[in-house]
Amino acid sequence: MYTLGIDYGTNSVRALVVRCKDGAELGSCIVNYPSGHQGILLDPKDHNLARQSPADYLFGLEKSVKGALAQAKKTKGFDAAAVIGIGVDTTGSSPIPVDAQNVPLAFQKKFAKSLAAQCWLWKDHTSWREAAKITELAAQHRPQYIAKCGNTYSSEWWWSKIWHCLAVAPQVFDAAYSWVELCDWVPAVLAGVTDPRQVKRGACAAGHKALYCEEWDGLPDKEFLALLDPKLADLRDRLYVKAYDASEPAGELSAEWAKKLGLKAGIPIAIGEFDVHYGAIGCGVREGTLVKVIGTSTCDCGVVSADKQVPDIPGICGIVKGAILPGFYGIEAGQSAVGDIFKWWVEVVCGGEGALHGKLTADAAKLKPGQSGLLALDWNNGNRTILVDQRLTGLLVGTTLHTTQAEIYRALIEATAFGARAIIERIKEYGVPLDRIVCAGGIAEKNPMLMQIYADVTGCTMLVAGSSQACALGSAVSAAVLAGAHKDFPTAQKKMTSLKKVAYKPIPANRKVYDRLYTLYRELHDSFGGRITNADHTKLMKELLTIKESVRA
Amino acid sequence: MYTLGIDYGTNSVRALVVRCKDGAELGSCIVNYPSGHQGILLDPKDHNLARQSPADYLFGLEKSVKGALAQAKKTKGFDAAAVIGIGVDTTGSSPIPVDAQNVPLAFQKKFAKSLAAQCWLWKDHTSWREAAKITELAAQHRPQYIAKCGNTYSSEWWWSKIWHCLAVAPQVFDAAYSWVELCDWVPAVLAGVTDPRQVKRGACAAGHKALYCEEWDGLPDKEFLALLDPKLADLRDRLYVKAYDASEPAGELSAEWAKKLGLKAGIPIAIGEFDVHYGAIGCGVREGTLVKVIGTSTCDCGVVSADKQVPDIPGICGIVKGAILPGFYGIEAGQSAVGDIFKWWVEVVCGGEGALHGKLTADAAKLKPGQSGLLALDWNNGNRTILVDQRLTGLLVGTTLHTTQAEIYRALIEATAFGARAIIERIKEYGVPLDRIVCAGGIAEKNPMLMQIYADVTGCTMLVAGSSQACALGSAVSAAVLAGAHKDFPTAQKKMTSLKKVAYKPIPANRKVYDRLYTLYRELHDSFGGRITNADHTKLMKELLTIKESVRA
Repeated sequence: MYTLGIDYGTNSVRALVVRCKDGAELGSCIVNYPSGHQGILLDPKDHNLARQSPADYLFGLEKSVKGALAQAKKTKGFDAAAVIGIGVDTTGSSPIPVDAQNVPLAFQKKFAKSLAAQCWLWKDHTSWREAAKITELAAQHRPQYIAKCGNTYSSEWWWSKIWHCLAVAPQVFDAAYSWVELCDWVPAVLAGVTDPRQVKRGACAAGHKALYCEEWDGLPDKEFLALLDPKLADLRDRLYVKAYDASEPAGELSAEWAKKLGLKAGIPIAIGEFDVHYGAIGCGVREGTLVKVIGTSTCDCGVVSADKQVPDIPGICGIVKGAILPGFYGIEAGQSAVGDIFKWWVEVVCGGEGALHGKLTADAAKLKPGQSGLLALDWNNGNRTILVDQRLTGLLVGTTLHTTQAEIYRALIEATAFGARAIIERIKEYGVPLDRIVCAGGIAEKNPMLMQIYADVTGCTMLVAGSSQACALGSAVSAAVLAGAHKDFPTAQKKMTSLKKVAYKPIPANRKVYDRLYTLYRELHDSFGGRITNADHTKLMKELLTIKESVRA
Repeated sequence: MYTLGIDYGTNSVRALVVRCKDGAELGSCIVNYPSGHQGILLDPKDHNLARQSPADYLFGLEKSVKGALAQAKKTKGFDAAAVIGIGVDTTGSSPIPVDAQNVPLAFQKKFAKSLAAQCWLWKDHTSWREAAKITELAAQHRPQYIAKCGNTYSSEWWWSKIWHCLAVAPQVFDAAYSWVELCDWVPAVLAGVTDPRQVKRGACAAGHKALYCEEWDGLPDKEFLALLDPKLADLRDRLYVKAYDASEPAGELSAEWAKKLGLKAGIPIAIGEFDVHYGAIGCGVREGTLVKVIGTSTCDCGVVSADKQVPDIPGICGIVKGAILPGFYGIEAGQSAVGDIFKWWVEVVCGGEGALHGKLTADAAKLKPGQSGLLALDWNNGNRTILVDQRLTGLLVGTTLHTTQAEIYRALIEATAFGARAIIERIKEYGVPLDRIVCAGGIAEKNPMLMQIYADVTGCTMLVAGSSQACALGSAVSAAVLAGAHKDFPTAQKKMTSLKKVAYKPIPANRKVYDRLYTLYRELHDSFGGRITNADHTKLMKELLTIKESVRA
C-alpha cells in the first residue's frame, strides 16, 4: 500500500509516492511553475507584490504526480492501483479569489492578466497597511482574536490580502464569489468540489491565518468584519462555518482527476495543511520537538497536547488546535527570509550564481565566530517572529575597507541563527516543552556550516530529518492514517519517518563568542524592532572590534 | 618663468611644471610607488597597518620630475633653467624614522624588511590605543593641546605613531635618531640637509599633527611627553624647536639633486605642506572658501585671518596658524574614507573592476534621492571629523531582498555627502565664514552624480577647481611666491589658479528628501558615534520606507 504526498512550494510543486509500511520513497517529481519569475508574478513598481498563476498549480499537479508515479513504477511490485490516499500541503496564507463554481477568477479571460485575480502568494506584503489596521481594530474591539497570533496580524495573511484586494482591485473583489486557501483549493479540485462553500477547509490555514477559532464560533464575527468593510462582513457568508483537522478527509478523488492522474477514483484525500505543518509530521514531530523547515524562509513548528493549557505567546505566529496533529495544539513561528537572504546576497548583490554559493560557503567556513567584526539583522523580508513586523528591513554593521563577500555571507547566516535563537527563547520562556530540534529543508541538508552555526548560536543540538522531502512525506503520512494504513499518527510517524545519522552539537568555545554577539544582536533587534526607545549603541562598534581582536589573537 | 610642484599622494607621486604668469601646466608626470599593494605595505594580520617604503619616494621624485620636464620641453620656449622654484606637498601625518644623517632607517640593511622602520603612512591606524591614551592624558594635564584638534588626538598622527613604534618595535625606536614628516623630509633631501635638527619643519604638519603651537612654545613640553614615555621626552631634543609657514624657504636645491633632475642648483624650495593644504591654495582658497579635496579620503580646508579670534571647534582636526597661507589660520577637517569606500564596494565586495564603477554610477544616477530606502554610515575607515574616532565602522540599513549593487553604491555616496554636511554644519556653527565651496580631486572632476548629490545634501553650490592637479599646482604657487614671481599669495592665486565652468547647484526637491534622510543619518551618527546613550531608532526603518514610497509615488 502506498500514499501520495503533494507539496506546493514557492517556486515548484513536488509529488512523492511513499510506501506506507516503511516510508520508502518510491518515486518523486518536481515541476517548476512555468509563469513569472521563478514561478512568481512580480510588479517592478512594488517589491511587496508576489502573486502566482492558479493555472500553474493544475499544470504542476498533473505533471508532478504522473512523473512520481512513472518513477515508482520502476520499483518491482508497485501498482498505481495500490495508492490508497493523497495528501496535499501548500504555502500559505495564499488565498485565491474564485467564482461560485470554485474556479479561480484568473481563468476568466477578463481577469487573466489582472494580478489581483491570481493567487496571493504568502510572501506578498502589499497589504501591510491593512494588516496594521486589523491589528489596531482587533486590539480595540476583539483582543482575543490576535492574542492567538502574537498580538499582531500580518500582511502575509488571509484577511489583510482580501481587504487589500477590495481596496486596490474592487472589480476583482466584487467578481469573487468566495476565496479559498491554496491548501484547501487543491484537495477540493481533486475531489471535484464545485461550490466554495462545500470546500472542506483545514483548521491549519483557518486557525493560523483567518482568525478562525472554536472559542468564538469560527471566523471573526460579522460585526467585527464590518468594521473593516461591510463587504467583508458579507463575504463571511460565502466562506465557511467549520474547519477540520487531519482526522477528517477533504473528500474522495473524483473520476475526472483519477483518470487524469492514473489513480483509483474514490481514494480519500487528506485535509490540506500548510507545507511546514505536514513537514513537521514528516520530521516526526511530537510534544517536545521543534521542527525547523529551513528554506527560502524558515518555519518552526511544535505541538502541545490539547489537554493542556497553552498560554498566548507574544510574537508567536499562531497557536491553533488541530493545525498539525489532531488532538494537539499546533504552534507556529518563523523567519520571513533565510535562504532568500543568502540568495539575495550571492545573486543580486555579488552578481554570482550557484557556484558562488559554494565558494562563499567554503570561504566563510574558514572564519571563526566573531572574526569578521560584522553583525547583521536578518530582516530583509521583515520579521515574522518574534516582532511580527513585515516592514522591518536588513541592517549590517561593522564593515571596514577590508570586509569581504564571504564575511558578509557568514554574517547573514549568523543573523538568521540569532533570529532562530530569539524564537527558541521566546517559546521556552512561555513553558512550551522543547527537548529536541529536527531540521528539514535543502539548507539543513546541504550546508553543514550553517547547521553548526545554528547549534553554536542556539546551544541546541541540531538533528536533520531523514527525508529530503519532509513536507510531501508528511502529507503522505496524513493520507496513510486517513486511509487506515496505520492506526494513528504516532504509529505512522514511527514507521514512515526517520532522522539522518548526523547531529550538529554546540561547540563550547563558539557558544561563548556567539553569546556575546547575540547580546549585541538583541540590542539592535530591540532598538530597531521597536521594543526600546532608549537604546545605548555607543559601545556596539567597539565591542564588535574587541570580539574580533580577541578571536584573531 | 616656471615653478615645479611635486605632490606625493597615497599611491603615486606627480610632478607638475607650471608657468608663473598664467598657471599654464606645461608638463606633468605621475609615477606609481613600486612597492607593496598599490604602493602601500600591508600586514594581512592587521588591517590597521599601512606603511610605505621611503625608497619609493626618491625613485618617484626623480622619475616624475624628469617626466614632467620632458613633457614641458615640448612647449616652445620652455627651458628647465627657467624653473625658479620647487614646492612639495605630501600625505600626512606620515612620519619617517631617520638616523643622524637624515637617512631613513629603512635604508639600513638590518631594517630593510622591518615594517616599523618604513614611513608610517597617514592611514595607518595601528596606534589607536596610543591615540586614546594621549587624548586622555592631554585632557587631564594639558587640555589646551587637544582643544586645537577637536579634543581628540588621532591614531593618524605623529605622536601616536611614534609612541606605538616604541611599544611594538623598540629596536627601531632606539635606532632612530629623529623622526621627520614626509612633507619636511622631501624638501630637506632636495636641499641636501643631512641633520634632522636642521630640517626646516613646516607649521602645517607640526601644528596639525604634532601638537606644535607658539602659545606653548612649540612642541609639547617634556614633562607631558614623559607622561607618555620618558623616551619620548628625550626624543623632543632631537626634533625641532620652530616650525615655519610658507613665507620661509625650506632650503635651496642642492647641486647633487639639481644635476639629477636637470635643474638649476640654488633655486628656492618652499616649505613642505600637506597635500590638501597646498591643494587649497591651488583651488584659490581665501577667507570664506571651503576647499574639499575628494579622493580616497576627503580633506576640507579653510582659512581665517590671523587677526581674528578663532574659537576651538570640537571635532575639527586642527586650527593652525600658517598651516595653509601665511598670515591666516588654517582649518582642517576631513573624512577618513570616501573614494576608498566606493572602491571597497565595487572591487572588494562586488568583485568588479574599473568598468563596474562606471556601470554602477550610471545605474545609481537613474535613482531618485530616497528611492532605494537605504541609509549608510560612511565609517568604513573610521570618522575623522566630527567624531574623531578611527575605530568606528560602517553601517548599512534598509536592505530588502531586492536591494541592488547600484542602490548600495549610491547609498554609500550619499553617506559620504551626509558626512560632508556634518562637517560644514559644525564649521558654520562656530562662526567660520563660509560662502563658497571649491572641490578638487579625481572624484570631483569625474563623477557629476556625486557632485550633484553633494550639492543636494549640503544645500551648497559645488564649484570645481580648474586644475586636475590642484595640490601640485598649489605647491608650484607657493614656490612662485617664494621665488618672487608674484608679490603675494592672493596675486599668485589670481594669476595661476582657476575654476571650471561647471557649478553643481542644489535642486530644491532633492534637498527636501535629503533633509529627511540627513535627520536619520544624524540619528545613527550620534547613537553609534557615541554622542547619545538613549537613542530612539524604533521608527527609523519605517521612515526610510515612507520616504521610499513617497519618492516612488
